Amino acid sequence: MSFSLPKKTTGSNRSLIREVAERGEKIPDFISLAIGNPSSEAIPVKNITEAYAKVLAENPIRVLGYGPARGSEELISWIKDRLVNQKNFKEKDHDVMIVTGSSQALGLIARVFLDPDDEVYVEQFSYPSGYNAVISAGAKAVSVAADEKGMIPAALEEAAKSGKGKYIYLNPTFQNPTGFTMPLDRRKELYEVAQKYDLLIYEDDPYGEIRFKGEPVSCFKNIDTDDRVLFVGSFSKVLAAGLRVGYIYANEKYIKPLRVVKDSMDGETPLLNQLVIAEVLKNMDFEAHLVEVRKIYKRKYEVMRNALLQYCSDKVKISDPDGGMFIWVELPEDTDMDAFYEAMFKAAVGAVKSEGFTVDTTKPGHAFRINFTAFDDHVLEAGARRFGEVTKYILD
Amino acid sequence: MSFSLPKKTTGSNRSLIREVAERGEKIPDFISLAIGNPSSEAIPVKNITEAYAKVLAENPIRVLGYGPARGSEELISWIKDRLVNQKNFKEKDHDVMIVTGSSQALGLIARVFLDPDDEVYVEQFSYPSGYNAVISAGAKAVSVAADEKGMIPAALEEAAKSGKGKYIYLNPTFQNPTGFTMPLDRRKELYEVAQKYDLLIYEDDPYGEIRFKGEPVSCFKNIDTDDRVLFVGSFSKVLAAGLRVGYIYANEKYIKPLRVVKDSMDGETPLLNQLVIAEVLKNMDFEAHLVEVRKIYKRKYEVMRNALLQYCSDKVKISDPDGGMFIWVELPEDTDMDAFYEAMFKAAVGAVKSEGFTVDTTKPGHAFRINFTAFDDHVLEAGARRFGEVTKYILD
Repeated sequence: MSFSLPKKTTGSNRSLIREVAERGEKIPDFISLAIGNPSSEAIPVKNITEAYAKVLAENPIRVLGYGPARGSEELISWIKDRLVNQKNFKEKDHDVMIVTGSSQALGLIARVFLDPDDEVYVEQFSYPSGYNAVISAGAKAVSVAADEKGMIPAALEEAAKSGKGKYIYLNPTFQNPTGFTMPLDRRKELYEVAQKYDLLIYEDDPYGEIRFKGEPVSCFKNIDTDDRVLFVGSFSKVLAAGLRVGYIYANEKYIKPLRVVKDSMDGETPLLNQLVIAEVLKNMDFEAHLVEVRKIYKRKYEVMRNALLQYCSDKVKISDPDGGMFIWVELPEDTDMDAFYEAMFKAAVGAVKSEGFTVDTTKPGHAFRINFTAFDDHVLEAGARRFGEVTKYILD
Repeated sequence: MSFSLPKKTTGSNRSLIREVAERGEKIPDFISLAIGNPSSEAIPVKNITEAYAKVLAENPIRVLGYGPARGSEELISWIKDRLVNQKNFKEKDHDVMIVTGSSQALGLIARVFLDPDDEVYVEQFSYPSGYNAVISAGAKAVSVAADEKGMIPAALEEAAKSGKGKYIYLNPTFQNPTGFTMPLDRRKELYEVAQKYDLLIYEDDPYGEIRFKGEPVSCFKNIDTDDRVLFVGSFSKVLAAGLRVGYIYANEKYIKPLRVVKDSMDGETPLLNQLVIAEVLKNMDFEAHLVEVRKIYKRKYEVMRNALLQYCSDKVKISDPDGGMFIWVELPEDTDMDAFYEAMFKAAVGAVKSEGFTVDTTKPGHAFRINFTAFDDHVLEAGARRFGEVTKYILD
């Protein structure tokens, strides 16, 4: 049969994250610094295994049947309590919605809020699934210039003058891919632009809890005087990614249509997975667990950064994030990125080039995102050494 | 802030299934025949609990981390083997894609294949999430007349003349809500219309394995000479709904874009849930398990149907499905449906009226969908008695 796909479906850029994985599979002893897997050492395996046994034993019929569309009330109220009491989020008129991993929110929010002509503003280097979800929903993802503080307010204003903007997609704390954290003053400036042009703010915060140095910065949700922020969080980096449980925290008027559409998307997030998380949280000191998780990430970060400093050419600029999972390595502007990319695979190491994080491929950049959490320390160090040797080979 | 939602988001009809649940919650001792939960007796609790313990013990780090985007290869190959060898589906160029419950396929397929002007054809009474997914994707769900054999080919042809059709959404075996099974000749006639107007066929088959009498009918996928059928199956009714694992079987050219978009929707279906199903299937005689499941459904069906025959007014027509989870009770055309509906709640019983299953609300119909699987036999019988008394009160 003849067959053509809508432009929105074919319009996503090819995934350079996947490309590294696929090329790497064919290279013996390949080390991938390309993936964004959380550290397995941070997973509380014993607590989770015990929770599965307990929840399944207590009421198997309930947890193996369809769950309530709203999700586990126990988990919802734990999340709400923590956001309100620990993070000082506004409680009035707000609700929590459980999603199947915070990535489900990417697709859901795009789908619920966007008409075909609408625009969504993303930073020059941003999380691909963030803007691909916009494209798949048939709307337009617009790249906005950013510096080390994040999206530049004047550039956002320039773009928003189109009058077509619906929301800004931001990952303001330990950003993926750059690892940068947006300072509070920049958040306030962007919030003002959002007010002026009546934009929602999608605050994607999968890494916020993994701060291993520096002072916490308030969330957009903390300065959200007129409820335009949808805050999206996750248990993937602090308990276990495989459980696929995340959440959206926002004014009820946004949660309500999101729930209705999720209903006809995949029904509910597996109840068992939600109850396991609720059980784990009930029995553990979560704040103490986070302290341990941060220690693990800090150690891995130091292993990776020290190795990069030791092995890389002096011509590269190695970022110094306060948390998260990524280091951003900037190469000189005249670097032959294609030659660098090929040399990297020859050295049996892989990282994702900045081109893989931009919706505006005319500005591919000259940087690499380096993950430091997915492997044992000695593997990370070996990866850094190989990457460093490539920088010397190409740049020196 | 000012705020308006796209029409696609607000355009879904209100859910009468949810309405019954919400009204029922406030009624003491309410019996809901409105929900579509599979029979809990059919869940192999012991096998599933053991599989969780085993899979978690074997490789906790792997199963609690991000899984492969493709899903569990073990489960994929089990499904493919069964479809090819047991159901005689074509193997060449075909692939299996795992989804988070077959309901995820509703949203995903709509989203991947539909442009805003496209039309999807659904039967006059059809599964609401099937057409609501189309509306949420910004396209148009068009109601097509159906009789007891299902969608009427001439009516489909009339609609498809618009030239805007993209696919037909069908649930041809033990249809939700009517329980009817489309005979093979009708499937062939519809397939010819699909060929003529170049339409895909979305064959939603959550109930196909639950045949408790009559002869099996070939699937659309069995007569799919030019690969236009996307077959969607599920483990929800035969193992456990709470695991949220379903699949799409189709030509690779369709699976490929579906995978790409799922990637930016929610990443992967929880790997642990997939591996638990794979483990359960490895250790059980699945065909023997199905025999047991069918016995349970048959018994429950007979309890419900006999009770309806015993207690209902002679003026109602009670369907006689060969499988699935629903009986369709048709009332005389002049029945005051509003009065019936209110009397039902007064009698502390709930079922979903036909209006809740149609995208064309100008033809609400005069029927009720009665579920016979969600409760213990004595509860089902009590529910049937109450419903029957309402028919006598209103009709006799």
